[in-house]
Amino acid sequence: MQFHHHGYVSKNPRVQAPAGVGLDRPLQLPEHMDVLIVGTGPAGMIAAAQLAQFPQAHTRIIEKREGRLQVGQADGIQARSVETFQAFGFADEISNEAYHITEMAFWKPNPEAPEDIVRTARPADDPHGISEFPHLIVNQARVLDYFGESMANSPSRMAPDFGWEFVDLNVHETGEHPVEVTLRRTASAGGDATSDATGEAAGATAEPGEQRTVWAKYVLGADGARSGVRAAIGRTLEGDKANHAWGVMDVLAVTDFPDIRRKCAIQSRSGGSILLIPREGGHLFRMYVDLGVVQPGEGAQVRQTSIEAIIGHANRIMHPYTVDVKHVAWHSVYEVGHRVTDRFDDVPAELTAQQTPRVFIAGDACHTHSAKAGQGMNVSMQDGFNLGWKLGQVLTGRSPAALLSTYSDERQVIAQNLIDFDKKWSTLMAQRPEEMEDPSALEDFYVKTIEFPAGFMTEYTPSMITGKATHQALATGYPVGKRFKSALVSRVCDGNPLQLGHLATADGRWRIYAFADAPAAGAPSALTDWAHWLHTDPGSPVLRHTPAAQDEDTLFDIKVIYQQPHEKFDVTDAPRAFLPTVGPFGLTARDRIFGTHPEQDIFGERGISREGCVVVVRPDQYVAHVLPLTETAALSDFFAEIFLEAI
Amino acid sequence: MQFHHHGYVSKNPRVQAPAGVGLDRPLQLPEHMDVLIVGTGPAGMIAAAQLAQFPQAHTRIIEKREGRLQVGQADGIQARSVETFQAFGFADEISNEAYHITEMAFWKPNPEAPEDIVRTARPADDPHGISEFPHLIVNQARVLDYFGESMANSPSRMAPDFGWEFVDLNVHETGEHPVEVTLRRTASAGGDATSDATGEAAGATAEPGEQRTVWAKYVLGADGARSGVRAAIGRTLEGDKANHAWGVMDVLAVTDFPDIRRKCAIQSRSGGSILLIPREGGHLFRMYVDLGVVQPGEGAQVRQTSIEAIIGHANRIMHPYTVDVKHVAWHSVYEVGHRVTDRFDDVPAELTAQQTPRVFIAGDACHTHSAKAGQGMNVSMQDGFNLGWKLGQVLTGRSPAALLSTYSDERQVIAQNLIDFDKKWSTLMAQRPEEMEDPSALEDFYVKTIEFPAGFMTEYTPSMITGKATHQALATGYPVGKRFKSALVSRVCDGNPLQLGHLATADGRWRIYAFADAPAAGAPSALTDWAHWLHTDPGSPVLRHTPAAQDEDTLFDIKVIYQQPHEKFDVTDAPRAFLPTVGPFGLTARDRIFGTHPEQDIFGERGISREGCVVVVRPDQYVAHVLPLTETAALSDFFAEIFLEAI
Ligand SMILES: Cc1cc2nc3c(=O)[nH]c(=O)nc-3n(C[C@H](O)[C@H](O)[C@H](O)COP(=O)(O)OP(=O)(O)OC[C@H]3O[C@@H](n4cnc5c(N)ncnc54)[C@H](O)[C@@H]3O)c2cc1C
Ligand SMILES: Cc1cc2nc3c(=O)[nH]c(=O)nc-3n(C[C@H](O)[C@H](O)[C@H](O)COP(=O)(O)OP(=O)(O)OC[C@H]3O[C@@H](n4cnc5c(N)ncnc54)[C@H](O)[C@@H]3O)c2cc1C
Repeated sequence: MQFHHHGYVSKNPRVQAPAGVGLDRPLQLPEHMDVLIVGTGPAGMIAAAQLAQFPQAHTRIIEKREGRLQVGQADGIQARSVETFQAFGFADEISNEAYHITEMAFWKPNPEAPEDIVRTARPADDPHGISEFPHLIVNQARVLDYFGESMANSPSRMAPDFGWEFVDLNVHETGEHPVEVTLRRTASAGGDATSDATGEAAGATAEPGEQRTVWAKYVLGADGARSGVRAAIGRTLEGDKANHAWGVMDVLAVTDFPDIRRKCAIQSRSGGSILLIPREGGHLFRMYVDLGVVQPGEGAQVRQTSIEAIIGHANRIMHPYTVDVKHVAWHSVYEVGHRVTDRFDDVPAELTAQQTPRVFIAGDACHTHSAKAGQGMNVSMQDGFNLGWKLGQVLTGRSPAALLSTYSDERQVIAQNLIDFDKKWSTLMAQRPEEMEDPSALEDFYVKTIEFPAGFMTEYTPSMITGKATHQALATGYPVGKRFKSALVSRVCDGNPLQLGHLATADGRWRIYAFADAPAAGAPSALTDWAHWLHTDPGSPVLRHTPAAQDEDTLFDIKVIYQQPHEKFDVTDAPRAFLPTVGPFGLTARDRIFGTHPEQDIFGERGISREGCVVVVRPDQYVAHVLPLTETAALSDFFAEIFLEAI
Repeated sequence: MQFHHHGYVSKNPRVQAPAGVGLDRPLQLPEHMDVLIVGTGPAGMIAAAQLAQFPQAHTRIIEKREGRLQVGQADGIQARSVETFQAFGFADEISNEAYHITEMAFWKPNPEAPEDIVRTARPADDPHGISEFPHLIVNQARVLDYFGESMANSPSRMAPDFGWEFVDLNVHETGEHPVEVTLRRTASAGGDATSDATGEAAGATAEPGEQRTVWAKYVLGADGARSGVRAAIGRTLEGDKANHAWGVMDVLAVTDFPDIRRKCAIQSRSGGSILLIPREGGHLFRMYVDLGVVQPGEGAQVRQTSIEAIIGHANRIMHPYTVDVKHVAWHSVYEVGHRVTDRFDDVPAELTAQQTPRVFIAGDACHTHSAKAGQGMNVSMQDGFNLGWKLGQVLTGRSPAALLSTYSDERQVIAQNLIDFDKKWSTLMAQRPEEMEDPSALEDFYVKTIEFPAGFMTEYTPSMITGKATHQALATGYPVGKRFKSALVSRVCDGNPLQLGHLATADGRWRIYAFADAPAAGAPSALTDWAHWLHTDPGSPVLRHTPAAQDEDTLFDIKVIYQQPHEKFDVTDAPRAFLPTVGPFGLTARDRIFGTHPEQDIFGERGISREGCVVVVRPDQYVAHVLPLTETAALSDFFAEIFLEAI
């Protein structure tokens, strides 16, 4: 965290100084706004939290409920999501209250007494250390609370407007706020908004049932599987004809089952199966009891499965163990199928790249996943993270509107891939190795499989924001299009061992990591030349795109990693490009210069060439480009597509 | 964290359910209370935060300031203090906003150009890994904020009463609330109390200057070096005649000094010296500029040293480097000497053990330390932690009042030792090894020295709450009287690798760790017998002292650590004593049973005998006793001194 540099901060430094709309944010939902987000689920909240870092844009997020989510919905948090929480500043806090999945147990019918279940395996959850972050279980409501806190502490001082329902929208061809949106008031007071007073005040203008028209530059429909925004732009979810149904319950119980605090897949002789998920707090657990496939139009009966029936079902599957439920915190029949829309915005396929999208959809509104793989909430957050910074850059005048087309291009493909993969995965996981056709397919599949449950499969293809992997050999551990994987480094100014990736907060900035060639800091080298170019050349992205009145590091967070250990040189040896002047007192930031960690050399660990290289990372943590230190023109050109020239 | 077991907790689980006084806590300072704490410094706040976990007692904490501390005072947080913060639930949060000391640099006159300073050494701060916690720098104000949050979230819903000054007190011989205290109102409204509204409301009854009398069972004077409570009980600080003075400043500056983000001891040729402490946030730093010894009555001139003079002084010492100060957040002339009072309560020396203390003093009120060793705030917190649970146990009727005598007995000796040690340390540290008389003395000293700056030197001697070290050989890594050092274990119920010590929260409970002998869980063994005794025998402390209406684990948090890895057995194999029934639904806690960690066997790591043993740990984390599994009578007797029989 960087603070005090605008003057002493006595209280919680996580509360950022208000700016832009945050200086005088209207408590009531205004008539005009830059962005209107519909829905406070994971997709909407992360987009709002990201946009809250762009206080020059006015973003509102509405929700038809009266207040925050209380209970239920999803609870599985992949390592990629925890990595994302880290960027929003709450990974440690949420981890401290969550259940950590360390291993998983499989229970099958006992071959000797098939009416009983028996434990057959207990593999580790992440045996390969694919991430330094844990795999967590915590209620969706708490995830949303933390995003709410992040928004409230942001320069925008954002808070959801509870009690407003999206009814319809109309995109006009002209006007500064071309999206006309009809809303309906659902509550007379705002309930328990995360950021208290605000939600309530927003209700003061309308009575329940009353309709209102508001105007936005952009609308994001993050309104779940039955999305009204999706309907309004004429898109439909396509895919499975039938749903799969689960009886879900969050309960407190007394049981003799030894693995009640371990994630379990339980199969009984009768074919009944349970997915058991221990929950936060040491006592609560969730059970998904499989209720089978539900054909279209035939769900009514399944939907009426009572909690008693679910408990009874569970007890039959768990035999010889019993589960004596003492308290039901939540239960539901959750029906879902694999489905996806063909585009995630309102631009007709034939007009892509010509027309600026005005309406977007994200999360369950445009793709739904099996509950079994636990992807829903996690993928939805990555949608919102992807779109948030793009809207922020366009609305603050930094980038051309063309940037917005990349959202649907990128995320639709990812959703489709994940769904295809999930189907294959579910089938293959049920198969024995000897049944498979191509033996090497298994190996390939295995490698991909490791990334799937942890949320690291996403790989963006070349576009205006993702370079070609021409120079991938310079940094084999940072595949272009995949998320930037952290590694240890030592900070020169204070000798602190740090995770390089964890310093990249969700502040909407791009990261440029300069990995040095062999010479020492300050000595003549490709790195020194590159740094000189970056700081002084008119072609440097910093000079071209950073507005003159703003701090040098407003758009780009630039860091250098030398091949030497930190104690071999001083920060004052490094080129000026890595010692930016910041804040009203003209102070020098000294925290951007690193040496290698004594126990984990990042160059070796991430396959970085000893010739050095430049790794460009997007605000949502995906590697955008890998370039040689000498290819300054390519770097300049890359950013010239994304950013407008500064005025 | 254990939650949901009294019903679903939808919001922040750190906010505990209100109980006792917390159900209807008077906003105004009442006329009668159980404990009155004077002063919201580190000593007072930690005592209050600990007492907040005893909601059956009514504790108030007053402060003469209008609101929270804003800036200044201490900032060095020893590892032992971070360990303590962990118990209060905020170690991660405060670490995330703090500066971490990884190494320290020494600057001396350059032998070749003595008017210039040059770096001569850069040792690691904790090369021996004495603690798994870091050494932090963060402003005292933030430490107090976190304790305030802990109090506010406690079952007692405690908040400081700002704007009340202690004037005098009088201890009566009889009455339920024998301490009569005179207070003066210093503020008309409560300022910005950590827990907002409360402080303000407390002011409503009195105008500034108005006096009030209140009555308490016990009073704690945590009112700093000029303590009025100390004066009221007739104690005086004794020790150094003269003070040492430092010009202290927290500033933002532009400098060419390469180590401005590293802790430095800087000595110039002229003899001038600086202690440089980088501060949280990446830019701010503190400098202590040595102003020398001030004889009694001669401080007036030094006290007038201006900030310009301090900055000028600093620049002369730093030559050839310059420090161009752009902003001064705080500055002061801090004068202090090594002093301590002879007792920390109001009982005359000749009446110890006969008379119950009614008034206590803690922190700077009873001992002051050199700024150089950075002990002040840290030692003060350990005072408050030590007293808090003792008052809690006595006031809730669990323990005899005699327990309260141990406070002064324990803490006065520790303070005296620390001060003696600090003097020796400062002298010896300035000496070269070859100048020392006894070469082995250096070695001994070195070992102790390692513990000193990290805060781990404290070792309590035998008393009613510290057993004799007769069986120390059974657990050589847990010296009786020293704090319980954590180690890794694997939790059986979920396979989570955990720091055993970090599970001990500051909830006022005693810990009993049963280290098993070799047989498997459930097999006949000394451990199995011990557990059976603990759960069923009338002599078991659990049965003798736990009130019948309360949960089995109300007083004692009992854990078992087996010698086998966690996957070798199930929680259901362990004896009933380790599977307590908790909460209104009669659920079974399954989180008290551990196996060894695959990479760090706690038995080897902490010198635990393969015969097993029982390690008893106090609520403030100090090892109280080590006993063989077979010595049940000794365990019973030990607790019979501390706890009353349950009714
Ligand atoms: C009842 C339910 C149970 C679920 N159970 C599970 C489960 O057991 N396991 C699992 O993995 N996943 C479950 N899910 C799915 C998981 O929660 C989603 O994948 C995830 O929340 C997707 O996030 P999202 O932000 O896209 O949508 P959502 O979380 O669905 O959020 C959409 C939000 O938009 C609001 N909204 C909808 N329409 C409007 C409107 N017209 N105007 C204003 N606001 C509107 C909704 O109230 C909601 O807050 C469940 C979802 C639901 C709805
Ligand atoms: C001005 C100042 C500067 C310091 N600077 C440094 C430093 O640079 N480095 C360092 O290591 N240590 C410094 N210290 C010392 C360090 O802060 C203390 O060692 C530490 O705070 C001790 O904690 P405490 O709780 O015992 O007392 P304190 O933190 O002093 O807290 C005492 C509290 O009691 C209140 N109080 C006092 N009298 C009354 C009364 N009659 N009625 C009601 N409330 C009362 C005070 O306002 C204060 O809030 C400084 C202390 C002070 C006062």
